[in-house]
Amino acid sequence: MYYIGIDAGGTKTSLSLYTESGELVENIQRPTCHFMKVGYEGMAEILLEGVRELIENHQIGLDAVFISFGLAGYGKDAKIRSSIDQALSNKFEGFHYCVYNDVEAALSGAFKGEQGIILIAGTGSIAYAINDNEMIRAGGFGYAIGDEGSAYWIAKRMLETVTKMEDGRLEKTSLYQHLLDRLSLQNGFQLIGYVMNTLGNERDQIASLAQYLYEAAQLGDSAAISIYKDAAKELSELVKAVSKEVNGQRKVAYYGGVFKSGAYILDPLKEYLGSTYHLMEPTETPEFGAFILAKRQYMTKVEPKEIL
Amino acid sequence: MYYIGIDAGGTKTSLSLYTESGELVENIQRPTCHFMKVGYEGMAEILLEGVRELIENHQIGLDAVFISFGLAGYGKDAKIRSSIDQALSNKFEGFHYCVYNDVEAALSGAFKGEQGIILIAGTGSIAYAINDNEMIRAGGFGYAIGDEGSAYWIAKRMLETVTKMEDGRLEKTSLYQHLLDRLSLQNGFQLIGYVMNTLGNERDQIASLAQYLYEAAQLGDSAAISIYKDAAKELSELVKAVSKEVNGQRKVAYYGGVFKSGAYILDPLKEYLGSTYHLMEPTETPEFGAFILAKRQYMTKVEPKEIL
Repeated sequence: MYYIGIDAGGTKTSLSLYTESGELVENIQRPTCHFMKVGYEGMAEILLEGVRELIENHQIGLDAVFISFGLAGYGKDAKIRSSIDQALSNKFEGFHYCVYNDVEAALSGAFKGEQGIILIAGTGSIAYAINDNEMIRAGGFGYAIGDEGSAYWIAKRMLETVTKMEDGRLEKTSLYQHLLDRLSLQNGFQLIGYVMNTLGNERDQIASLAQYLYEAAQLGDSAAISIYKDAAKELSELVKAVSKEVNGQRKVAYYGGVFKSGAYILDPLKEYLGSTYHLMEPTETPEFGAFILAKRQYMTKVEPKEIL
Repeated sequence: MYYIGIDAGGTKTSLSLYTESGELVENIQRPTCHFMKVGYEGMAEILLEGVRELIENHQIGLDAVFISFGLAGYGKDAKIRSSIDQALSNKFEGFHYCVYNDVEAALSGAFKGEQGIILIAGTGSIAYAINDNEMIRAGGFGYAIGDEGSAYWIAKRMLETVTKMEDGRLEKTSLYQHLLDRLSLQNGFQLIGYVMNTLGNERDQIASLAQYLYEAAQLGDSAAISIYKDAAKELSELVKAVSKEVNGQRKVAYYGGVFKSGAYILDPLKEYLGSTYHLMEPTETPEFGAFILAKRQYMTKVEPKEIL
């Protein structure tokens, strides 16, 4: 049996073909298939094209492959779940497959199927663990009312800070001029039009401004470093809330674009979490996590004699 | 000469007819004419209908009335200013009029044309004063990147607090159940769909949720009271930033829906500002402020012998 582990998030779709023993045969990347961006049918279509490419490349029959989807948005909302299920069953007739949330796949990959807490901070933010088959989460409420410590949250905090520098509520630091230079603006008042018109007040666009905070931090800017600290505090609270519910678990894997800022976010995060937590990079990818989940599910479905 | 003072904000348009000496003859209200909601032509049309009603009610000729517009959005953006000027000149041919920002009119009314700082906290927030004919402002960067301490900001803070209570980042207080009851929701996760779908992630709709925070504060809820304190701190920083630029001015008039929460916002605001500031309600309305501004402008335009 071959397995295809899929990580389908808000920015890209990644599909990996594995052998029975978990050896990576091939990985291919596709654009995002998030239903909020391409619809349910569009999601299933992008996924099917990717799967087809992988099995045709290696001439694998339908009966010899088990697909494991890790899909963003496949969560507690029953209506969304059933719409996704419906779209997949329309397109994937004849295939063997199972469906998980993308965060579940990431968690499974991070600890190779063992217990632990995963902390994700990309455009959004969430912490996640499993206790006795129950999913425990903190955060992940979306950009409108939550996602504290995410790239979007960090970028908004930077914009608020620079506008406060503009009108004298805060002392100007080098961050002020750095951001204006990067955006070719004359003053902080022009940020209003820049965010509303140039960026269309779009979450992804605003989140991408966080790169300028990283640059300012590298220049030693105190305001930038302080924003990273605030973000780290928010992220530590996500971890602690989950940890309370999963007795004694203290292993925390971090994942997502925010952590590309390295020590600026990781050092204060370690400090806020304290020494009882063990912070680490994920051991394996979300695609591999999807493979682990699928294999476990497949094993419980077949008769014992088939396994032997 | 009669005067019409107009306060045109984001939620309503208020038109007041005054005699030469500032006696109120009649006030009428119209829906908002904000150009972001009804366009520039729509704005001028709503204003013209209101003006026509007032002068027809009292059989006043075009030459015997001077109109003073206090318009939201008539600010530093040259393109918006000229679009408003154009729309008004199309519709108000033959009328005598002058145009100000709505905040300028509110400031003029609050201190009857004398010096002072006006602090506005409605759906948005801004502090404003005039020094040697120069407008000094802090805040007013809009809901996407600023408006700290506004009703929108307060409501967002409440939503963030309740979601943190949902997943255990914060201890639940009575605010948690109160908000869910008011919105007929079973848990905090449903706030995601409520804000994005039911409220369409709309600023005004979200801002109006602030009323439930007021109710929770009245029930003595500590989290609600603490959010008001945080809002008051933000508002005090707006005032202090303006105050630095207008030497020695310490009179502060407060105006807007947030102050309907009374002591919950005013007590901490007084504390953050300290005893050198004198916090007060506006003496007169923004419409009367527009009248004062118009009269001053009219007086400087006519020949001295006409005044005598």
